[in-house]
Amino acid sequence: MLSRNIETFLGCDKEYSEADIVIFGAPFDSTTSYRPGARFGSREMRAQSFGLETYSPYLNRDLSEIAVFDGGDLELSLGDPAPALKQIEDYVSRIVADGKLPVMLGGEHLVTLGAFRAVFKKYPEAHIIHFDAHADLRDDYLGAAHSHAAVLRRCHELVGDGRIYQFGIRSGDRSEFDFAKQGHTHLRMFDFGGLDAVVRRLKDQPVYLTVDLDVLDPSVFPGTGTPEPGGVSFDQLRAAIREVCGLRVVGCDLVELSPVYDQSGVSTATACKLLRELLLSLMI
Amino acid sequence: MLSRNIETFLGCDKEYSEADIVIFGAPFDSTTSYRPGARFGSREMRAQSFGLETYSPYLNRDLSEIAVFDGGDLELSLGDPAPALKQIEDYVSRIVADGKLPVMLGGEHLVTLGAFRAVFKKYPEAHIIHFDAHADLRDDYLGAAHSHAAVLRRCHELVGDGRIYQFGIRSGDRSEFDFAKQGHTHLRMFDFGGLDAVVRRLKDQPVYLTVDLDVLDPSVFPGTGTPEPGGVSFDQLRAAIREVCGLRVVGCDLVELSPVYDQSGVSTATACKLLRELLLSLMI
Amino acid sequence: MLSRNIETFLGCDKEYSEADIVIFGAPFDSTTSYRPGARFGSREMRAQSFGLETYSPYLNRDLSEIAVFDGGDLELSLGDPAPALKQIEDYVSRIVADGKLPVMLGGEHLVTLGAFRAVFKKYPEAHIIHFDAHADLRDDYLGAAHSHAAVLRRCHELVGDGRIYQFGIRSGDRSEFDFAKQGHTHLRMFDFGGLDAVVRRLKDQPVYLTVDLDVLDPSVFPGTGTPEPGGVSFDQLRAAIREVCGLRVVGCDLVELSPVYDQSGVSTATACKLLRELLLSLMI
Amino acid sequence: MLSRNIETFLGCDKEYSEADIVIFGAPFDSTTSYRPGARFGSREMRAQSFGLETYSPYLNRDLSEIAVFDGGDLELSLGDPAPALKQIEDYVSRIVADGKLPVMLGGEHLVTLGAFRAVFKKYPEAHIIHFDAHADLRDDYLGAAHSHAAVLRRCHELVGDGRIYQFGIRSGDRSEFDFAKQGHTHLRMFDFGGLDAVVRRLKDQPVYLTVDLDVLDPSVFPGTGTPEPGGVSFDQLRAAIREVCGLRVVGCDLVELSPVYDQSGVSTATACKLLRELLLSLMI
Amino acid sequence: MLSRNIETFLGCDKEYSEADIVIFGAPFDSTTSYRPGARFGSREMRAQSFGLETYSPYLNRDLSEIAVFDGGDLELSLGDPAPALKQIEDYVSRIVADGKLPVMLGGEHLVTLGAFRAVFKKYPEAHIIHFDAHADLRDDYLGAAHSHAAVLRRCHELVGDGRIYQFGIRSGDRSEFDFAKQGHTHLRMFDFGGLDAVVRRLKDQPVYLTVDLDVLDPSVFPGTGTPEPGGVSFDQLRAAIREVCGLRVVGCDLVELSPVYDQSGVSTATACKLLRELLLSLMI
Amino acid sequence: MLSRNIETFLGCDKEYSEADIVIFGAPFDSTTSYRPGARFGSREMRAQSFGLETYSPYLNRDLSEIAVFDGGDLELSLGDPAPALKQIEDYVSRIVADGKLPVMLGGEHLVTLGAFRAVFKKYPEAHIIHFDAHADLRDDYLGAAHSHAAVLRRCHELVGDGRIYQFGIRSGDRSEFDFAKQGHTHLRMFDFGGLDAVVRRLKDQPVYLTVDLDVLDPSVFPGTGTPEPGGVSFDQLRAAIREVCGLRVVGCDLVELSPVYDQSGVSTATACKLLRELLLSLMI
Repeated sequence: MLSRNIETFLGCDKEYSEADIVIFGAPFDSTTSYRPGARFGSREMRAQSFGLETYSPYLNRDLSEIAVFDGGDLELSLGDPAPALKQIEDYVSRIVADGKLPVMLGGEHLVTLGAFRAVFKKYPEAHIIHFDAHADLRDDYLGAAHSHAAVLRRCHELVGDGRIYQFGIRSGDRSEFDFAKQGHTHLRMFDFGGLDAVVRRLKDQPVYLTVDLDVLDPSVFPGTGTPEPGGVSFDQLRAAIREVCGLRVVGCDLVELSPVYDQSGVSTATACKLLRELLLSLMI
Repeated sequence: MLSRNIETFLGCDKEYSEADIVIFGAPFDSTTSYRPGARFGSREMRAQSFGLETYSPYLNRDLSEIAVFDGGDLELSLGDPAPALKQIEDYVSRIVADGKLPVMLGGEHLVTLGAFRAVFKKYPEAHIIHFDAHADLRDDYLGAAHSHAAVLRRCHELVGDGRIYQFGIRSGDRSEFDFAKQGHTHLRMFDFGGLDAVVRRLKDQPVYLTVDLDVLDPSVFPGTGTPEPGGVSFDQLRAAIREVCGLRVVGCDLVELSPVYDQSGVSTATACKLLRELLLSLMI
Repeated sequence: MLSRNIETFLGCDKEYSEADIVIFGAPFDSTTSYRPGARFGSREMRAQSFGLETYSPYLNRDLSEIAVFDGGDLELSLGDPAPALKQIEDYVSRIVADGKLPVMLGGEHLVTLGAFRAVFKKYPEAHIIHFDAHADLRDDYLGAAHSHAAVLRRCHELVGDGRIYQFGIRSGDRSEFDFAKQGHTHLRMFDFGGLDAVVRRLKDQPVYLTVDLDVLDPSVFPGTGTPEPGGVSFDQLRAAIREVCGLRVVGCDLVELSPVYDQSGVSTATACKLLRELLLSLMI
Repeated sequence: MLSRNIETFLGCDKEYSEADIVIFGAPFDSTTSYRPGARFGSREMRAQSFGLETYSPYLNRDLSEIAVFDGGDLELSLGDPAPALKQIEDYVSRIVADGKLPVMLGGEHLVTLGAFRAVFKKYPEAHIIHFDAHADLRDDYLGAAHSHAAVLRRCHELVGDGRIYQFGIRSGDRSEFDFAKQGHTHLRMFDFGGLDAVVRRLKDQPVYLTVDLDVLDPSVFPGTGTPEPGGVSFDQLRAAIREVCGLRVVGCDLVELSPVYDQSGVSTATACKLLRELLLSLMI
Repeated sequence: MLSRNIETFLGCDKEYSEADIVIFGAPFDSTTSYRPGARFGSREMRAQSFGLETYSPYLNRDLSEIAVFDGGDLELSLGDPAPALKQIEDYVSRIVADGKLPVMLGGEHLVTLGAFRAVFKKYPEAHIIHFDAHADLRDDYLGAAHSHAAVLRRCHELVGDGRIYQFGIRSGDRSEFDFAKQGHTHLRMFDFGGLDAVVRRLKDQPVYLTVDLDVLDPSVFPGTGTPEPGGVSFDQLRAAIREVCGLRVVGCDLVELSPVYDQSGVSTATACKLLRELLLSLMI
Repeated sequence: MLSRNIETFLGCDKEYSEADIVIFGAPFDSTTSYRPGARFGSREMRAQSFGLETYSPYLNRDLSEIAVFDGGDLELSLGDPAPALKQIEDYVSRIVADGKLPVMLGGEHLVTLGAFRAVFKKYPEAHIIHFDAHADLRDDYLGAAHSHAAVLRRCHELVGDGRIYQFGIRSGDRSEFDFAKQGHTHLRMFDFGGLDAVVRRLKDQPVYLTVDLDVLDPSVFPGTGTPEPGGVSFDQLRAAIREVCGLRVVGCDLVELSPVYDQSGVSTATACKLLRELLLSLMI
């Protein structure tokens, strides 16, 4: 009898019951304000991951040494974000209830709200570390509170002041930067300066890591909805992710890969490699 | 003093007060289920229209002979479609209140609902002629009633049985074709067969014409969210639009151009040429 | 416990044991002489098939009504074709041994040789119906006997004279057309003329159907290794496939989709729709 | 000693002295009004022609049976068209002086003026057969008399009334169509209707054939500067070229391939195949 | 009465009379020697600018705080550059006559000659600061004195020796570098080394700044006619522009964005962001 | 009599007899495991090289000062690599027998094996310097010993331990890195650290330099079969090549440009510029 050759993300072929980490896709992008298409991010990462090696020479570790279950993509309702956020929250709630670590692949950045709600219910003391080109602190976007451009503001409503650490930010309207300056969040512009101090401060605290891949310079990551020149390099982001994984990470996500805007496939290859490094770093 | 060289759709440079027709863009695509991007349709048509001539050898008429105001693109809220539909309805209501003919450029097909609501308030006896590859008669799509795949079903809730004429349909689930077969709509599969009879029947009736450009074969119109092989040719669609314009058209739209999926620009050129033919035909 | 949301070709989610048809991918393209990339054909069809409906308005049938197992893609050795052809032959031998119908998705056309060898062992009286732009009757290509350009010649070595029926052929060198004229194969240039007679003649005979998708006009199918202007339309090919499926088909394949050459995705959408029609037609 | 493997257009590898036909490229596009890039047309045809067969099943003839010299691309000055036109005229003058038949590959359509001037000096009684989507009869374009949009008007200044036969025309401003209606040229809109009568009338007359490839429908030929929906099919154009080649052709050109606008390569493949058919037809 | 939603460059919506700066497009590229398409640069910047924020976190300033009029694109004659250069010169003359600062968006680099002529008439003592990958100091290009590759040579004929400062130059023929070495211009290879000294030296002098965007590394700016590896980063160029704006700038331009060569849109996003920084820096 | 305007790589137009260096293309990519297309690398470099200058400001030298023959592309058999490797070996053997320096343009990396075999026969004491993202030290790939992923392992079988120096390596499976650690090769991860020491050590030794262009960061070189984020910059690679050319180089190659994956053309421009620098450096 022939078995099915199932396509999972490279080397993430463990069963759910034996897995420490659960990766899954959240293909939603209905609130994207500039160029939509992030819904195809997780799918394309899965499809192209076989171009990568399972072994990391950076970490001298191999995906075969860790236990990851790839749940595939959720089937999310489009348009109004409320039902999709609820679906994501329910799914992640089950993962954390089963004592496993959720790693969500976007989709647009708004999906973070669904995942973080679930994590926050279990870890109400959690902090958020946020890598992004954009502050995402608007109160609303063209009237919509549920917007990718407001997602960290919504998270702030959950965790309150001083619990969100933002790095790499180089875009936003003035009110967003003012919001951070007023002490609501810690906002580092342009790069990862000060991350080491934050990591020291948050030792033993539960941390949710959200990585908007557009924190990368668009030279190496053009395939995203709102490219912002002047970003960090692949090696800087790889190292920053590694550093955060020295903390007690209770949930994380990689969002905003929009493959249609990068015919070369390099953006997807970059996202895949970062996911490999993230998964291996989480299990060190 | 220097004046601004404003970019309008080719030859549509009249003032609002003097115009018979008002064209405008509805850049919304949040419910697109497969490939988003129709939000850029109207903008790209305006930008590329200068590659076209104002004169039509098909009609021996020129855009300089008619009075069209290009209102530009609406600034629509994304995500939840309800506010965007309301914005469109309000805008179109003002156009019809001023006795002008609205021609909306999508955007995804759901925007038709906003425009038709406005038209229907003024013309409650209106019929709808619908050119499309897809039936768009679902009751909902993944739970969402406001979906591009359900837009004609929503229109049917307004006009009731027998007032919607569909042509070119070659895709849908079984329930949609059954809905039509039960007499709720007139549905012609694959082509424009029987359009002449419909035109004779609807003489002197107010008609709203909605053209989902994916009724075209994807060979000539690849730039759309859900391409469906086996469609009609440019000349067939051009002739069908011309035929409908012999009726008393009280509103119309061209939707579902998604230019990012056609790097060649041919889809946009095709949409522009059809708009020129539509505008000239409406004023004959 | 969370289950995995597995990606199969649309609606082909039955278990192997319950399936009547087995589809699988053969991602090999090492002998492609002009533009390689057909190795990504089957994968891309699986990934994009969700843009299609399971219901066919042409046949008034739905994929949910038939039992198809999607085995995924084989992991084939690249370079020297001999091992890959052996892998395919072994795989197909198991399918036919289990009394199921194999439907292979290419890859380049050479993969047909592996599949047909397996079918031919069980059905030594089988005929081949071949839709293609190219005759594929070379004795060798730049010295290589195992070449996509020689695949039907290799099949001819198995079945002998008069058992191969070729349609749509519009390219080849003179020796290929001469080979056919000498009576070795039945070759119809440019279109499907005479297919009805062939279908009548082969009634009750076992038939292997091989469809090189470049038989389609490149306007609707640009995503292929060697596009040849002047081909058949989608509807002509759809009808021809339907007609052949009235015979006793014991194996078939769709080959030569090379998605990277069609940024619009229309070629993949076309291949998916033809596969749906093929699968439904096989089970009528 | 190693020899150089020179890239010529497929099968056009004869020496100048032994050639009956001389093909060459005229990479100029400075007056293109919409999308430039035709300068790369001839180069790309040469580079991609190896994807084609030398044998034509339409004509049962092979490029190896005729003697064609490929002179490569001219090195033309850009910007002001006057020097480039002079370079082309000089080059073609030498070809016709040597009793060979010039076949020019564009480049934009204005290059026809240079080639025709040379041909006209030797054949002052020549007629022009013109296949195009655009009338190209403007007196000037934004003030420039040397414009692709005015090239047939410039030719008319040489040959006078009634000596230019235009087919497939579906775009222009009103003045151009009026110019034709006044009897200055014979203009057939949309298709090749009446070509057979023209061929009969021009029997034994010297004829210059100029083919703007945008006469083709953009579905099969998107790679051009100004795509115009509603064009002729590959087979229609192929047959029309074949028909004209029954006349005494003293010069011809294929222009307006702009490969960058067709990532699929189909436009180039189409142009190559038409050139093969043209060359073989000229020598029948 | 409905008003028109006019598309200007982001945040540049002041009236001419109230504006301090006038931006406009010069869509000309007829002398481009390698890959044309810069004619679409200014238009695409306008269309895509809405993906950017009006606020600059680099400068802590917002476009809403300054007064910029966007004049749209000039309608320039193509082919022979002389008329187009005259149109540009006349337009800029009016801007400077009205005491406003012209900021021109190319178009190819030759357009600088038109703008600078106008500025030079009013400020005959002006110096030029030139950022570019190419020296642009040829005496002519294939015989054409009016060429993008000769534009700084033409400017040198106006201002004479020692008044042109070139930075980032990494391409040219030997004669161009020799011309600079002979003291005709100040030429810094590869980077902005020495810019600070130049800025000190030119304090209080009128300066024209011309930025050929291909000075950027093609990794972040592939969308240009002649990409040259080994260029400066976005942040280096941003800082250099900021530094020059500390001088008395009397005119400037950003040229050579050719969007068709960058399907990802990153080149356009980069050009837009640099324009925002330039505009804000000019008004500090 | 008209001569042919032959397309060679920029400035490489000497006759074979007078040349010191012979460049040629090896268009083979049948063992590529991820994305094929490197077969078009050499052809595209030749076609696009005219966008480059012959003069190098880095070296203050010009291609007109050295003698290079461009032999064009070999016509290699596809599929099974053995015949193609033999063709390459024979060709290079003739070049080295004639006392000229071979510079091969790929094609995939496996072609290095053919060229190195020829060089090794003449220079059995040769060392290999290898720039690459991938170790290429597998014993086999999916059972194939002749694989791009095993090419340095095959070379190691010729030269034995300690004669291969690898730089920039950032991908491979664990066994490959272990193979190097066991002393079989010198492997430097990520960058060119230690290259200067190697150059001192190998002084006066014959050296074969093989450059897999994917050692570059994919931001500047996306057009390759297996892009690996985290690579070196153009300037770093340019300098490293320059440094190696201070040694006694007896053969070299540039491989793995796959132009179809970079619609912007920047990858090809980068490869061309590196070839210019390589050629000029070899003759210093």
